[in-house]
Formats: sequence, C-alpha cells, structure tokens
Amino acid sequence: MGMIYFVGAGPGDPELLTRKAWRLLGAADVVLHDALIDLHALRAEFPRAKWVNVGKRMGQLSVDQRFISKAIVGYARRGLQVVRLKGGDPVIFGRIAEEIKACQAHGFDFEIVPGVTAASACAADLGVSLTMRGVSRSVVFVTPTIGRHESATQSEWLKASLAADTAVLYMAGAQSKEIAAALIAGGKSAQTPLCVVENASRQGVKLRTTLGDLAISGLPTLTGPVTLLLGDALAAARADGFADGFVNGFADVTVARKEMKL
Amino acid sequence: MGMIYFVGAGPGDPELLTRKAWRLLGAADVVLHDALIDLHALRAEFPRAKWVNVGKRMGQLSVDQRFISKAIVGYARRGLQVVRLKGGDPVIFGRIAEEIKACQAHGFDFEIVPGVTAASACAADLGVSLTMRGVSRSVVFVTPTIGRHESATQSEWLKASLAADTAVLYMAGAQSKEIAAALIAGGKSAQTPLCVVENASRQGVKLRTTLGDLAISGLPTLTGPVTLLLGDALAAARADGFADGFVNGFADVTVARKEMKL
Repeated sequence: MGMIYFVGAGPGDPELLTRKAWRLLGAADVVLHDALIDLHALRAEFPRAKWVNVGKRMGQLSVDQRFISKAIVGYARRGLQVVRLKGGDPVIFGRIAEEIKACQAHGFDFEIVPGVTAASACAADLGVSLTMRGVSRSVVFVTPTIGRHESATQSEWLKASLAADTAVLYMAGAQSKEIAAALIAGGKSAQTPLCVVENASRQGVKLRTTLGDLAISGLPTLTGPVTLLLGDALAAARADGFADGFVNGFADVTVARKEMKL
Repeated sequence: MGMIYFVGAGPGDPELLTRKAWRLLGAADVVLHDALIDLHALRAEFPRAKWVNVGKRMGQLSVDQRFISKAIVGYARRGLQVVRLKGGDPVIFGRIAEEIKACQAHGFDFEIVPGVTAASACAADLGVSLTMRGVSRSVVFVTPTIGRHESATQSEWLKASLAADTAVLYMAGAQSKEIAAALIAGGKSAQTPLCVVENASRQGVKLRTTLGDLAISGLPTLTGPVTLLLGDALAAARADGFADGFVNGFADVTVARKEMKL
C-alpha cells in the first residue's frame, strides 16, 4: 500500500532539512517537487528516487492543481512511497490542502512532515528574534497581494499585518512599493524598521531599512525570492557589511551585489 | 576564539532537528539548554559535550536572564564552541534577544540556526494546513496571557488573534477558558473550529472542538505543553480516533488518555 508524505524542504539550505525529511527522501520511490532552487544538490543525494517536477508543465507557469493531485494518487496506487516535497514548511503557504483532500478521497494515508519556514530562516540570517520582551508578543505571516481593482486598505492581509507586532510578508517582492504604501496608509509608522531578505538561508541581499524608505524607493532588482519583515523587533537586525550580504539602505545594494559577486 | 550558536531543537521529536543542528551538537563543547522534554535522547547522542541546564537554578522556577547570558559569554571566552539549545525555533518565543545582546556586548560572534516551530508541528499532527485558498491567508502566533487586573479585550495578543485568519496560541494551557471567552467577546464566532495539541510532534492528546466549547468547558487536565489553534482552516483537522491521540470533544478525553496509556 502506497504512502504519501508531505515533506517540508526548509528555506533553501539543504542543511536545514530535518533528519526525518532526509530519511524519507532516502526511502522514497517518487519525489514530486515544485521548482525548488537547491534541488540539484538534493537530487544528487537521493538518486534512487524518481524526481518529478510538478511545478511547471509543458512550459506553463501556472500549476494545475488537479494534475498534481492526480499524479500523487496515481503513484500511491501503484504501491509506491511518495514524497511531496514543498519549499519551507508545507502547512504555511504550501497549498497542500487540495492535495490532502485528494489523498483522503481516494483512501490513501498521508503524513505531514513539518519544515523550517522562511520567516524563521530570514530572522536567523538577520541575527534577530521575531519576538522580544516588551517589544513584540505576536508574529503574523501573510502573502500580500494587491489586485488591480482592489483597495489595499480593505485587504485581510493588511488588517492582520497592522494588528501584529511583527509581520512577515512572504512572496512580497513584486508589489513592495504598493505594499509599503498600504501599510503606512493603514496607520503603521513610516519609521517602522523593515528588513528585506533575498534567498533566505542562502547567499543573497539582506537589507535593513524602514517602511517609509521602501514606500518611496521600492525594491532594487532582486532575482531570488523576497521576504519582507517589519516591526520594532527588526531594529536589532544586524548589518555586518557587504561580505555577508548585509547592507543599510538601498543606495548600497549595487555595491553590495558586486562585492558578493551576485 | 569561542563561537555561540543559538540552535532550534524543534518541537520535541528528535527526528525534527535539522541536519545543521545535529552537526553543531556533535561539534559542541558545551550545550546550554532549558528544560526540554526529549533531552534524555539527545544527551545520549552527544556525550562529548558538557550539558548544562540553565532553565532552572537551585530549585527556582524563574530563569535569571543575566545568569544565562553570563554563562554563555563565560564559556565562549574560554574558546569553547557553545550551543544554546532552545525548544522549537529560537526566534519565535525563544527569548534569545537579551542573550544575543550579551554576545554582541562582549564582542563574540554568534549564529542563529532556525528550527521547526510548534505551530508547524501541531498542524502536521492534525494533518491540516494553516493556510488555505479562500479560507486562510494569514497566520498569527501569540502567547496569550491575562493578567489579574488586565482587561483581556484590550490585549495586543487578542487584537492580533482576531485580525488573522488562523491563530496559533503558544503556551495557552493555563488560562484556556478565559482566553476562549476573550476571543468570543472580541467578536470571534463561538463556532470557530479549534484544536488543542498536547506535546506537539509527540504522543499526547490532540483535540478537535470549537471555541465556544472551550469557553464553556475549559481544558481537561493535560500534563504536557499545550498549543491552541483556531480558525476555519482547522475544520479540516483529522480526528482519526483514539489510537493516534485524536478525539472529538472533551468528553472523550478520559477514554482517549486511557487508550493511549498516557
């Protein structure tokens, strides 16, 4: 009887996979994965498994969820050990709910193996705690998007971000300027410390700035996935200089990227 | 020159430590730890390191933060590799901010190694995603406490919990009834699906109920750390029966505990 594991691959550094994830990858017959960045290293570690990219199909960028569910159930039906590998933690913006439903509908057992989510890795990169006595007693994770005809001030993600002491904005690279403006319009101080992390847990630009600066300048051109972190707790984020990818203010980014050979 | 690592031990199951955490424990001269539950298994794996409990001192329950900081810096000054081991993820309710400040004040380099936080492990136990298309696009982590002369409805943790789609309440066992009542008074529906997880990632009671039921009944007697999860996404949490520790409704708890030999 096939078994399906929804496994968190962590933020990118293969060292941040859990021991359980590593063990399950070693025992897997099939690994169904999205477009993960450090996949090359992982595939080499586990050559026994069949690695199937379900993140893109025939050049299409959009993911057909039914196709993925069908693939998972299809492999399990053949009695195979299936690992559905997700970046970060599967239960936080991993979009596994529909795939779980499909497993249950077809009577297959499944297990979720938690992983390190991007927010934790970003904070580790920045050398800062997301909670802090007297400063931050709540942390919210959101995926901010502003639709073309949408009023950002009415958005659920905005309300949640404004109410929490520390907010971590996943996949926030594309509309960062609009997102910052919406947060300020919603009442967040422009002086709020804000960090930008490109490629959490791996080499990339790590910026320390303010919400107001982001609203004015927007993000510099970054190629990797971008996470934004804001709140007074981020005031303690380190900016050790260019070598480690830490820079203060956006003007320095070009220099920093050159130094880091990015 | 000594080096200090703030390392996340994950939610309890030693299999959920990251590979990096495992490697650093193997290289550590000293491990400074709080009162972690699965410590026995870990200590046996890494007998080379000196294991120091800084969670309790001379029978006192309260932790003197200055004592811990002093110990960390003291070992590092002797040129030792120091691992400061925290349950879960160090940056989420790990109280490491003051210890980091001490490292910086004394000129010692440090690194944070992220871990799997309790919320992720709870959701994995329950077989449910904390985010869900059209249901939950925000997740907040809080530590709810209601002081003796405090009005709960004014609390920061409450505002943040009400604004997010999914709320995870860490260390919420002691005042669960008051917490549930405060959430309902704040406007959360009594029908909101709520899960109780004792001992995330390990054997313990995993309950599926509603916010209203918790406000009326309070929690049954549980011995392990308790996390509460609430929001419409939790409606999909599984309740497979007693054997796995999943029960529906509080009346079944006594039977469940007996079945599970807890």
